[in-house]
Amino acid sequence: MARIVQKYGGSSVADAASIKRVARRIARARHDGNDVVVVISAMGDTTDELMDLALEVSPQPQPRELDMLLTTGERQSAALLAMALNDLGVPARSYTGSQAGVITTGLHGNARIIDITPGRINKSLELGNVTIVAGFQGVSQDTKDVTTLGRGASDTTAVALAASLGAEYCEIYTDVDGVFTADPRIVPSAAQIPEITYEEMMEMAACGSKVLHLRCVEYARRENIPVHVRSSFNDKPGTWVTGHTDMRKGNEMEQAMITGIASDRGEAKVTIVGVPDQIGKAAKIFDVIAEAEINIDVIVQNVSAASGRTDISFTLPMSDGKKAIDALTANQEEIGFEKLLYDDQIGKISVIGVGMRTHPGVTARFFDALAEQDINIDMISTSEIRISVVVQADLLDKAVRAAHTAFGLDADGEAVVYAGTGR
Amino acid sequence: MARIVQKYGGSSVADAASIKRVARRIARARHDGNDVVVVISAMGDTTDELMDLALEVSPQPQPRELDMLLTTGERQSAALLAMALNDLGVPARSYTGSQAGVITTGLHGNARIIDITPGRINKSLELGNVTIVAGFQGVSQDTKDVTTLGRGASDTTAVALAASLGAEYCEIYTDVDGVFTADPRIVPSAAQIPEITYEEMMEMAACGSKVLHLRCVEYARRENIPVHVRSSFNDKPGTWVTGHTDMRKGNEMEQAMITGIASDRGEAKVTIVGVPDQIGKAAKIFDVIAEAEINIDVIVQNVSAASGRTDISFTLPMSDGKKAIDALTANQEEIGFEKLLYDDQIGKISVIGVGMRTHPGVTARFFDALAEQDINIDMISTSEIRISVVVQADLLDKAVRAAHTAFGLDADGEAVVYAGTGR
Repeated sequence: MARIVQKYGGSSVADAASIKRVARRIARARHDGNDVVVVISAMGDTTDELMDLALEVSPQPQPRELDMLLTTGERQSAALLAMALNDLGVPARSYTGSQAGVITTGLHGNARIIDITPGRINKSLELGNVTIVAGFQGVSQDTKDVTTLGRGASDTTAVALAASLGAEYCEIYTDVDGVFTADPRIVPSAAQIPEITYEEMMEMAACGSKVLHLRCVEYARRENIPVHVRSSFNDKPGTWVTGHTDMRKGNEMEQAMITGIASDRGEAKVTIVGVPDQIGKAAKIFDVIAEAEINIDVIVQNVSAASGRTDISFTLPMSDGKKAIDALTANQEEIGFEKLLYDDQIGKISVIGVGMRTHPGVTARFFDALAEQDINIDMISTSEIRISVVVQADLLDKAVRAAHTAFGLDADGEAVVYAGTGR
Repeated sequence: MARIVQKYGGSSVADAASIKRVARRIARARHDGNDVVVVISAMGDTTDELMDLALEVSPQPQPRELDMLLTTGERQSAALLAMALNDLGVPARSYTGSQAGVITTGLHGNARIIDITPGRINKSLELGNVTIVAGFQGVSQDTKDVTTLGRGASDTTAVALAASLGAEYCEIYTDVDGVFTADPRIVPSAAQIPEITYEEMMEMAACGSKVLHLRCVEYARRENIPVHVRSSFNDKPGTWVTGHTDMRKGNEMEQAMITGIASDRGEAKVTIVGVPDQIGKAAKIFDVIAEAEINIDVIVQNVSAASGRTDISFTLPMSDGKKAIDALTANQEEIGFEKLLYDDQIGKISVIGVGMRTHPGVTARFFDALAEQDINIDMISTSEIRISVVVQADLLDKAVRAAHTAFGLDADGEAVVYAGTGR
């Protein structure tokens, strides 16, 4: 009897009918002889509605109380799903994150899982129950208060539970068929990726792919839990996220150069003009940003001018723009810069693939494709398996389509670029 | 510094604006130097809406899961109220019933409070927080599952907490100004009662007054907690429910004969026709009813006829009517009755007051008042401080008004009947 963890997102349990549909799918997995643990998100827009209600009551809701409020959404869907399963003759019990033993740090709104003590879950499974856990939430180790793990963190709950329970794999059910070579809304010919490594998936998530959350993939990689991302609306196989890079390396003839193209419209660019070219000034800038708890992404420092001053640009989530400007302005004198520029009309496009490790020509092909479309590159950042560039926002979709075609990812065209074809 | 418990019902926290209004009232009690514990109900119709959702998913929702679902309503209002208080500069924290140490039996949907372990509440109070507890819920002693105490049981949570915390008194905030001498919708001249004993309030609650729940008053009497029922929409003093019967007895000159008139349209009458007049038959009937978990109210056994058979009538909540008929029909052969009659067009009117202990003429005055209005009495039941009669449903309001006037309760008339006036 295999032990599996399934996670269903909010769009899969948007109303009573959807909950019953999901219950039938879970019942099938149970009848197939599996021990099933289900992690569930809040129904449809529940979390947003609760957030709106909180903002009606308080302009800046206390984080502890906001967590108490928001966690009710998953508790409701968990209880409703248990009712639906019991009606199908499948014994089921729902548990809050706290009851399920999801122990977290105390940072309300963005807590991290420290440990899972699955005593009650194991007992419930031993009694033959499908065991449903409210996602996105836990209990703080120190204060025993209810915490949340950040938006979308039900995926992380699922993977953490899979690791803690020794599950064979973790299924993440969503409203798309899996991970695609690009956002299908931008690239209609985007193809579903049958298998992707943890590293690639992490880069995809970090670069704007919304299918899986970065922390969830990090967790899966650390614990080596295979993750199957698939649709709750059909029975098609989805995308397997695994650590099988070795297999791929040993089979390089079929190695795709690029796995997918990610794109992100949610960032803005801050340029600090006229920073004195002295040791410690750049460090001071990023100290200020770090103290404001802003995660920055791409950083570019322009060549120092004869003036002895330099310009430093970085990108950051658009929602943190004001905070960054405020923090830097407050420290203008100490840093000694001349002025700040702010641009939220930017887009980031990233080409990702473990294959590029062995293909020196990826950068050239990527930049050629953009040049052919007259798209100017504003900033560049790379990792071993990723190249990201920042372009003008209104050119982003065009850039994604150009790159998708250039790397042969179009479903109707050459879906896979084989190593050694000389391209 | 006094320690007080305040309870706010769903109508007092129906939306964001109401929550902020309630927060201001609580802030005032805190600024007056009190340690404040607040018990809160779910917002407006939340519980009904959750129940509807449950019924959409499952025709007979599992009680354990229903409790998990319904308890989210109070958690939401508790968290929102805490946010609103914090915005007013009043530190506040919300706790679930489980976190607050409300330990209950395991009967989902109708659990009883076994004990309160207020460690976290006390700690929160010591830190200077207004401490908000989600009403209506607890945690089962045996299974550690979330339980509910039955509809409207937030009042009971409040009184139980007041007892456990050694509070001076418990304020129950509602949408009426207090307890009235009769339902003001039926008797426009009904007057607010400034003070009432636990015993009278229990009879009022048992006889159809919706202001306080019976179990709450029972609890308050057992623990001797003064309860102040008042409106959350104004600052008028409400009705104090206390154990001061001794004071009243010692001050009999001002003793009202009758404290109030309660009425109930929610009952039905079952008549079992032709029960053999043998020892054990009546007992068997009520065994059957008890096994079906139906609480019956007034019982009347008619004089045995020459036939050796008798008729037995009793009233019960209308919602249990079908269950009672089914249970009795299933046992018709064993009991040996001839037929069942069912009538839900009845109303019960009760006159209540500790004063009647010393006034033998109460029954006569009550029945005279009904006779003057040509209202026929169908069934009678009495306690030491109450006389109830069952009348035709469409005559109930008329009966209530007649009794209200007869006992001098009309606000514009003689509000109090003095002992010794010879009336």
